[in-house]
Amino acid sequence: MKTALYAGTFDPVTIGHQSIIIRSAELFDKVIVGIGHNSQKQCMFSLEERLVMLKTLVEDIKEVLKMDNIEVTSYEGLTVDFCKKNKVDYIIRGVRTNTDWSVESSIVYANKLLNERVGTVFLLANIDEIGISSSIVRDILRNNGDVSEFVPDVVLDMVQKKITTHQK
Amino acid sequence: MKTALYAGTFDPVTIGHQSIIIRSAELFDKVIVGIGHNSQKQCMFSLEERLVMLKTLVEDIKEVLKMDNIEVTSYEGLTVDFCKKNKVDYIIRGVRTNTDWSVESSIVYANKLLNERVGTVFLLANIDEIGISSSIVRDILRNNGDVSEFVPDVVLDMVQKKITTHQK
Amino acid sequence: MKTALYAGTFDPVTIGHQSIIIRSAELFDKVIVGIGHNSQKQCMFSLEERLVMLKTLVEDIKEVLKMDNIEVTSYEGLTVDFCKKNKVDYIIRGVRTNTDWSVESSIVYANKLLNERVGTVFLLANIDEIGISSSIVRDILRNNGDVSEFVPDVVLDMVQKKITTHQK
Amino acid sequence: MKTALYAGTFDPVTIGHQSIIIRSAELFDKVIVGIGHNSQKQCMFSLEERLVMLKTLVEDIKEVLKMDNIEVTSYEGLTVDFCKKNKVDYIIRGVRTNTDWSVESSIVYANKLLNERVGTVFLLANIDEIGISSSIVRDILRNNGDVSEFVPDVVLDMVQKKITTHQK
Amino acid sequence: MKTALYAGTFDPVTIGHQSIIIRSAELFDKVIVGIGHNSQKQCMFSLEERLVMLKTLVEDIKEVLKMDNIEVTSYEGLTVDFCKKNKVDYIIRGVRTNTDWSVESSIVYANKLLNERVGTVFLLANIDEIGISSSIVRDILRNNGDVSEFVPDVVLDMVQKKITTHQK
Amino acid sequence: MKTALYAGTFDPVTIGHQSIIIRSAELFDKVIVGIGHNSQKQCMFSLEERLVMLKTLVEDIKEVLKMDNIEVTSYEGLTVDFCKKNKVDYIIRGVRTNTDWSVESSIVYANKLLNERVGTVFLLANIDEIGISSSIVRDILRNNGDVSEFVPDVVLDMVQKKITTHQK
Repeated sequence: MKTALYAGTFDPVTIGHQSIIIRSAELFDKVIVGIGHNSQKQCMFSLEERLVMLKTLVEDIKEVLKMDNIEVTSYEGLTVDFCKKNKVDYIIRGVRTNTDWSVESSIVYANKLLNERVGTVFLLANIDEIGISSSIVRDILRNNGDVSEFVPDVVLDMVQKKITTHQK
Repeated sequence: MKTALYAGTFDPVTIGHQSIIIRSAELFDKVIVGIGHNSQKQCMFSLEERLVMLKTLVEDIKEVLKMDNIEVTSYEGLTVDFCKKNKVDYIIRGVRTNTDWSVESSIVYANKLLNERVGTVFLLANIDEIGISSSIVRDILRNNGDVSEFVPDVVLDMVQKKITTHQK
Repeated sequence: MKTALYAGTFDPVTIGHQSIIIRSAELFDKVIVGIGHNSQKQCMFSLEERLVMLKTLVEDIKEVLKMDNIEVTSYEGLTVDFCKKNKVDYIIRGVRTNTDWSVESSIVYANKLLNERVGTVFLLANIDEIGISSSIVRDILRNNGDVSEFVPDVVLDMVQKKITTHQK
Repeated sequence: MKTALYAGTFDPVTIGHQSIIIRSAELFDKVIVGIGHNSQKQCMFSLEERLVMLKTLVEDIKEVLKMDNIEVTSYEGLTVDFCKKNKVDYIIRGVRTNTDWSVESSIVYANKLLNERVGTVFLLANIDEIGISSSIVRDILRNNGDVSEFVPDVVLDMVQKKITTHQK
Repeated sequence: MKTALYAGTFDPVTIGHQSIIIRSAELFDKVIVGIGHNSQKQCMFSLEERLVMLKTLVEDIKEVLKMDNIEVTSYEGLTVDFCKKNKVDYIIRGVRTNTDWSVESSIVYANKLLNERVGTVFLLANIDEIGISSSIVRDILRNNGDVSEFVPDVVLDMVQKKITTHQK
Repeated sequence: MKTALYAGTFDPVTIGHQSIIIRSAELFDKVIVGIGHNSQKQCMFSLEERLVMLKTLVEDIKEVLKMDNIEVTSYEGLTVDFCKKNKVDYIIRGVRTNTDWSVESSIVYANKLLNERVGTVFLLANIDEIGISSSIVRDILRNNGDVSEFVPDVVLDMVQKKITTHQK
């Protein structure tokens, strides 16, 4: 059985993430969606909010696509250490641009030095999702924009609500 | 009539910006130079200082090159929303390096999702301006260096003065 | 009046080219689509075939979009020399990927040394056309594939016919 | 059951290819190593030689690593058509450098237009194999060099022999 | 006599830095390893700690490799100004990835505008050090990981100790 | 004593090459400019013509800049083998763009596998030479253009003459 980790900050989750999660669940026996939590890093959405978002999304995928091999969790510490403890065979990385790629390849080589047993599999962003990232969503939210083209329907309310909260 | 927006932070304006402004004014009927203002982002120069700098520069271009189709303004909110309200047809982006390019192409695709009517036109930095950017100018200023090769003559005093101010 | 040249080999024309031609015609007063002809370079389609294709396409754009500022021609010699003779103000370049960009920026700097009066404007490929290029179309044709998603409808017959011709 | 295709020219096979084949066989239920054959493309090694090399290598992997889910074949025509006929779910691509990546992402988007059911999975070259490619091996062979660090032991004789053949 | 500066933040020093220092000392008559100090930039290791680390490392290189042409220092202000004052002929830059390269080439061109007499020499990271950087080391430290594969043996204690200090 | 090799095809030599040769002669005790000769590769200029060009250029550098540590030669076979036989310590590579860089880094890693004793030093193209390459010069020559901005004065006649020869 092949287990894969799709790790990220998911601040917030986007339709780009959604697509990688679904494609990973097709490819692997078990997929763990893991929020790499770092108490020093400032996020727009709290860890709890992000966990709820991801769980809502995964519940929806389960219902609509009949995929029940996806788990959601959060972890502190190094991703490679999480992989050791949870018998993760592969780390999944979504890549959109060349600059992503440069950064990603450095990380793979660093991870190999820390845990040589874990592999990495890259999935390319769908073509219509190249312009979609959490940081762009946050930027739109800060400017009271509409993120409905960027965020899965099922979590849109949770994300869009941030505008009101954020501005009070 | 084609209207174009050249948006940026201009903290401070450089001869690279000057070149893009002039070339844009040759290409379009009307050019709006817009300072995208974000109260949370910390700048070395205040919004007022930057507006004065850009207006001084545009006044100079008008006098020397007889170009009177350039306006200066600032705005809050999303660039694509500014474009809708001001009937902007094109966003102008100056590109210097490959890394710029990667970032820029993502932004174009995100903007298309938010406002599909606005186009984007890329102008390449002049070859002798590849090493020139606002962040390098700020770095030189912080180290009391001479920025006369990086900043238009007409605003040099305003920029260089920052060294004294900054260090008191 | 601003005149722009969109130069290429167009072997054959793709929907990526079509999009750049239409966007250029919106941006400039006059657009020349020029086939840079080089008797030593081997093409799948003859110069005559490519001229017919482009003229058919431009005729169609004229009819459907009411744009009558596009001309088609071919030329030998350097692109910058063509620009001098034909009072071209701007060269238009379509860019799809980072690798494209690296190559393009070198060409711009070389052109500046040969003719400093001509400018260059870059247009980014539409997001759904990133995977589309003449060389991919030729590769599909060589393998008897279907290019209907890659080539404008109005020239599809001319292009697809190549399969039969090519294989006899 | 997930079937993946690892397609290439393998002119000749390298230890970089060997590594991707082994990692693919760990990841998928069945892996087809397919030589994309094109009668017009000139290769240093004949199709027969390349088939023998790959089969020898796969036989060795089977013996040493007890992996029996790898097949070797050759095909003409488009890779996406091969995938349709052979119920291939994923195309595997090995990536070494940024330039590779740019090229690869274009191909993925083109393939999607031709066959939207096939996915693509990217594996990064092992760090010590970044400098290894078939074209570098051919270059060394043409200069009578030693390719033992570049080619799997089990096919080294077949490859190195080319020097003598090539120079007669 | 050729003098070269290898400037950096060294927060902390890595085996990638060590390799560049040794290779620079082979190439130049004299090598200055300079910590570019900036009181506003927050570092994990204090300037004093970093100076001790580098001096320990250079002492070790002197003993083991018999190289006595390396000096360690720190400086404030622009790197190009340091070069002028210290008759530095060349700046040494280590490059690992394409993204590094883009950034580096901009800096070279900016430096030329400030001090046209200083040259720049690029050394490529050793292949097994592509995944190694100070920021990755800091990330591992923050997560209580083991950095022994990333940091020279002779300073490992000083670096690893940070975990305890950092977390109290 | 440090000896460096600047290898290339020099078909023909450009002012970009000239700049790298001069900067290399400042940096190393001895510089060998080596034409990597490959009887199968078709060049516009014969090996003899290229040797004469480089020798003329080096003679000029000797006279004008008083540098007498540059030799010109040609060689067949692998560059790393030439380095072994001629006790070359460093290979010099000129880099202009990101795409260059990707290719170059692969070559360095391949060379390390063949000859681990030789180092590689990268010099960045001068900013005003980014658009200059042998292939662009050949392209201009084929189109009867003027290459005086691209080629050192002292060899301009030899290069420009090609137009007449080439077209008869």
